Amino acid sequence: MPVGRRPAHTGRRPGESGARGDILAAARTDFAENGYDRATIRGIAARADVDPALVHHYFETKEHLFEAAVELPVSPAEFLPPILAGERARIGEEVTRRFLTVWEEPHNRPIFLAMLRSVLSNEQAAEVVRRLLVKEIFGPIATALGVPDAELRATLAGSQFIGLALMRYVGRVEPLASADVSSLAAAVGPTIQRYLTGEIGARQGAVGA
Amino acid sequence: MPVGRRPAHTGRRPGESGARGDILAAARTDFAENGYDRATIRGIAARADVDPALVHHYFETKEHLFEAAVELPVSPAEFLPPILAGERARIGEEVTRRFLTVWEEPHNRPIFLAMLRSVLSNEQAAEVVRRLLVKEIFGPIATALGVPDAELRATLAGSQFIGLALMRYVGRVEPLASADVSSLAAAVGPTIQRYLTGEIGARQGAVGA
Repeated sequence: MPVGRRPAHTGRRPGESGARGDILAAARTDFAENGYDRATIRGIAARADVDPALVHHYFETKEHLFEAAVELPVSPAEFLPPILAGERARIGEEVTRRFLTVWEEPHNRPIFLAMLRSVLSNEQAAEVVRRLLVKEIFGPIATALGVPDAELRATLAGSQFIGLALMRYVGRVEPLASADVSSLAAAVGPTIQRYLTGEIGARQGAVGA
Repeated sequence: MPVGRRPAHTGRRPGESGARGDILAAARTDFAENGYDRATIRGIAARADVDPALVHHYFETKEHLFEAAVELPVSPAEFLPPILAGERARIGEEVTRRFLTVWEEPHNRPIFLAMLRSVLSNEQAAEVVRRLLVKEIFGPIATALGVPDAELRATLAGSQFIGLALMRYVGRVEPLASADVSSLAAAVGPTIQRYLTGEIGARQGAVGA
């Protein structure tokens, strides 16, 4: 199978080479355009110019392929420790800045679109995204901060990030779309800070910031 | 053209009768399933069992039909005045509770899905949703509260609401999906309160809550 050079911004990340990288890039584009339900291994194989058997060889199922395709472009294990080691009161703003910085990169956009369209079309895909948000990002943060209700906090913070990215990068709704990263991190950071460390339910009593 | 009785939960609202109501209900379903770009006046007419000429007669263009289809199920002119007349510090929670209460109704869901899928697929649709958020909901609130940066505030609040509804009603991501309306209004209300009345940019100075 030919593995030619690909143009920029196809969802291919640095370090992903060969047929496996081609398949992941094709999967991102396909999930982003069609959503999880309409995407097929056959269609993704055709887009990557490989045999469907090779897709099954690398990823076994569509769900596993989706998981690999929407893996975060920057590993939380790398970016979380420095943020968590910093000032506790600034964690919300720093996580927001990091989130925005990742999606500012045009070659990362297909990952987000693939997540979003797929969440809209399929329960399995929604579950993958939930696991990603809760287990890999906000769960570790909540655990490190020692707060209760980690899963609810994780999904509240995730809901703000998903809505922000949807309006800024997909809908390009102004003035959100043109605001600079620092202003947005300052505007949205306190929201994330409260969801992660603050009081999130008047009826359940204070959690302590 | 036959205008038969329709089953519940088709996107038909109380008070929408006859062919016009059939067309709007069909448009909501079609925009929700296909997004703005893939939806066609011909397809919507077929779904409503009317002639495409009648759709043009009532709505002229696809954009106008979309605007009518995603019109809010409850008019802001009705629900805003009592909220704005209440305690200023509780406006965020009350708007959040109202927002959740509207989308709890299963027959209103197609409107939200139509908005969401269409924002994902088309700039014109995104602009319609932006106008709705800014001009009809958060703009009047910001004006009534006398705060600056009304459009940025409107889109920030809108981003939280859209992400929340996306994760709760579309992705059904737990524990957000099963949380009760009051708990969620308490958790998300302060976010909306700060976006509408608080300081939203450390670098631009305080706005005053």
